[in-house]
Amino acid sequence: MEGLGLNPIMKRTKVIDALKCTDFGADICVKGWVRSKRGSKGIFFVALNDGSTIKNVQIVGDETVIPEEIVKQITTGACLSVEGKLVESPAAGQASEIQATKIDILGTCDNTYPLQKKGASWEYLRTVAHLRPRTNTFGAILRIRHNMAMAIHTYFHEHGYFYFHTPLITASDCEGAGQMFQVTTKNLYDLKKDENGSIIYDDDFFGKQTSLTVSGQLEGELGATALGSIYTFGPTFRAENSNTPRHLAEFWMVEPEVAFMDLDELMELEEDFIKYCVRWALDNCKDDLEFLNKMVDKGLIERLEGVLKEEFVHLPYTEGIKILQEAIKNGKKFEFPCEWGDDLASEHERYLVEEYFKKPVIMNHYPKKIKAFYMKIDAEKPVLDGKEMEETVQGTDVLFPSIGEIIGGSVREESYDKLMGEIESRGIPMKDMTWYLDTRKYGSCPHAGFGLGFERLILFVTGMQNIRDVIPFPRTPKNAEF
Amino acid sequence: MEGLGLNPIMKRTKVIDALKCTDFGADICVKGWVRSKRGSKGIFFVALNDGSTIKNVQIVGDETVIPEEIVKQITTGACLSVEGKLVESPAAGQASEIQATKIDILGTCDNTYPLQKKGASWEYLRTVAHLRPRTNTFGAILRIRHNMAMAIHTYFHEHGYFYFHTPLITASDCEGAGQMFQVTTKNLYDLKKDENGSIIYDDDFFGKQTSLTVSGQLEGELGATALGSIYTFGPTFRAENSNTPRHLAEFWMVEPEVAFMDLDELMELEEDFIKYCVRWALDNCKDDLEFLNKMVDKGLIERLEGVLKEEFVHLPYTEGIKILQEAIKNGKKFEFPCEWGDDLASEHERYLVEEYFKKPVIMNHYPKKIKAFYMKIDAEKPVLDGKEMEETVQGTDVLFPSIGEIIGGSVREESYDKLMGEIESRGIPMKDMTWYLDTRKYGSCPHAGFGLGFERLILFVTGMQNIRDVIPFPRTPKNAEF
Repeated sequence: MEGLGLNPIMKRTKVIDALKCTDFGADICVKGWVRSKRGSKGIFFVALNDGSTIKNVQIVGDETVIPEEIVKQITTGACLSVEGKLVESPAAGQASEIQATKIDILGTCDNTYPLQKKGASWEYLRTVAHLRPRTNTFGAILRIRHNMAMAIHTYFHEHGYFYFHTPLITASDCEGAGQMFQVTTKNLYDLKKDENGSIIYDDDFFGKQTSLTVSGQLEGELGATALGSIYTFGPTFRAENSNTPRHLAEFWMVEPEVAFMDLDELMELEEDFIKYCVRWALDNCKDDLEFLNKMVDKGLIERLEGVLKEEFVHLPYTEGIKILQEAIKNGKKFEFPCEWGDDLASEHERYLVEEYFKKPVIMNHYPKKIKAFYMKIDAEKPVLDGKEMEETVQGTDVLFPSIGEIIGGSVREESYDKLMGEIESRGIPMKDMTWYLDTRKYGSCPHAGFGLGFERLILFVTGMQNIRDVIPFPRTPKNAEF
Repeated sequence: MEGLGLNPIMKRTKVIDALKCTDFGADICVKGWVRSKRGSKGIFFVALNDGSTIKNVQIVGDETVIPEEIVKQITTGACLSVEGKLVESPAAGQASEIQATKIDILGTCDNTYPLQKKGASWEYLRTVAHLRPRTNTFGAILRIRHNMAMAIHTYFHEHGYFYFHTPLITASDCEGAGQMFQVTTKNLYDLKKDENGSIIYDDDFFGKQTSLTVSGQLEGELGATALGSIYTFGPTFRAENSNTPRHLAEFWMVEPEVAFMDLDELMELEEDFIKYCVRWALDNCKDDLEFLNKMVDKGLIERLEGVLKEEFVHLPYTEGIKILQEAIKNGKKFEFPCEWGDDLASEHERYLVEEYFKKPVIMNHYPKKIKAFYMKIDAEKPVLDGKEMEETVQGTDVLFPSIGEIIGGSVREESYDKLMGEIESRGIPMKDMTWYLDTRKYGSCPHAGFGLGFERLILFVTGMQNIRDVIPFPRTPKNAEF
């Protein structure tokens, strides 16, 4: 009757809802993409997926009901609209299936489709990143990624934090964390220069040289010293030429900043926050986690549950050095040295987390010289082997099994004089940064915050190994496709 | 006893919680910044704010209890820690106040503080954007901004959409919406060129010329045609040299994209979504809205409630032209013409929304030539005055009182051939965009989506007039401060 306008359009049911439905015998309409088709003796079975869940709904078709020219077009990747009856499934592993009464081909898919074959490598799938969200694994990762973002917003909202949008284009490079991307509207074919040969930026869009931010922290401190508790969550950039499974040129970062927070409260926040995210994943992403646990990392769910069970160890850096040096005495071999004052290598962190404590560790009270200028200096110097060491700061790194550092935070130095002392002794160019120093000049307050690389969290929660596989379209050296 | 370590540190209570507390007589500790101080006869009153709410808590101090050198330092902008007793307030407009037993100055504030005086102009406050979040108005705006972001995430999460992070650095400029910012790590003092004098980008970070994105829509379509329903919410860039109260070079955009959605469902989504956000503001930002309604825009709350009451008008463009031409016949004067095919000016939209219908309007079925290439072409041409007009597309603009266009959306052309026809006839450079065309090649599906300029929403919900005042650190021509 279609075409006469007499047949009312049936409302689409999402696959996730269709699979929960037990109203057997009811008419139903689902739409989605063909994951696979098989058949024999005039009956065919289509696994249809619409992205709402990792699970497919099974469509059962009878070739005496569905016209041959339609059946021919039901190929892997094709997009279908299926009307039929929801029936109890005789097959194991699924409660229901749909007996098709009508199938429309919304979009065909020929055999040049790049996702024809199963078991494609991660490398290959990166070359078709525009289509890989249609695979089981990337569907699962992206639904979990969404859920982790939702967990972050919900956590902070429920705890009275305000989402604070710090700018991405910036005229300051304070922390100097890695090389920056320049942002310009200048005509590169006609660069004006002054008499010394320096490029003039008067005519650039912002009237000065600008770059993409490497962190929203400094602006975040402006928010915290006004609104009390804020967080940022947005893209961040590093122009490091690092072609590793741990680096992206464009990644997402979460940075809460809290007025009146001290070191103990900061560590409590870090632990509570990350456990909340992991719990959210376990509570809300069961099907996707089970898939990943089966196909990607058999220890995944156990590791996630493990994090929730343990209280994180609070470990002063100096105590960590003691443990590592004791281990070396007892025959443990490390590639890199670990004298007091050294930045710990990944092998040291893994030893402490995975072998010694067997639980997450929040390391703190780091040597001042290996941490950023804005960290609050401890009142007392630590003692190692009876000797007084150099100054330490109230920095914290949260170290996780398998992933290493997942959070870096600190109490911020709130004293104008001490902060200026660090800025001067480190030679940090702050001439354009009086706005930052004003936080210490006008009603300065103790405050603290941390940064979480969002993709690090997604790696941990999905069990994936390469950071390029937990963001839809990775930006890395020589790669800005899609 | 402090200093001896015998006095346990009292846990801080946020001002928002202190004001709700009726446990009179209890010990309490609040921390925050001095908004004002007044006093007489040995008693002083401090209005203390910690950003958790627009309301201040009143601190009552007795100069026989609080040492003189402390009292002297309690100046506007100073940061205090106050311990005392929560008591019922004799003053009107507040349930409780705090009788201070101990005040610590966490950070002093001298009379160079840029926010000393009340009633500073918007222009002046933009020059101290690093401090303006400490004012009543900007505190209110930023708390509402947070709430609108939370409303957006919650709405989409509850409706089964996945937050999809599209890249900011892009090698494609498909829509060509305004000039773009170039992103580069090239040494501008040593630009390599080929024999034709063209700059070579082989040695740039991404190995090709890249810019900041003007929209995540095209990548969003990749997400929707895999996950079903997605949304983006992130920074977006336009290098337009527009110094107006409506333009930012860096702004936040929300872009849902939905597989299998048709025009009616799209309009339903647009209306439902925006009403959800406005309702969230009314339900969750009462104090801040009441402040803005009093101080910034006396019609604000009424306008917000008005939007919730009305069903939005669905108005085909051609019908809109008829109404406007009828109005002109009846003596209405417009500055700009409005013949069929013209892009409507703000005055036309305002007439329809504010004078003719007196409610929000979703205009649709626009002439193809004034809309983007990816919009689905209508099956039938419209008729005006008995004559058949040119082709129209399934685009929608949601027009609001006071603010004009707040949402622009469309059904997307899902036919590969029709889409290619538009691309070719418009001369759009698509050579690097085969990934986008693949959505129409492999299992193409009907889909639709819209874009909402987040700051437009914040303007509407706060009653503010200048877009620079609804984002913490505006980026505009010649301005990238902070």
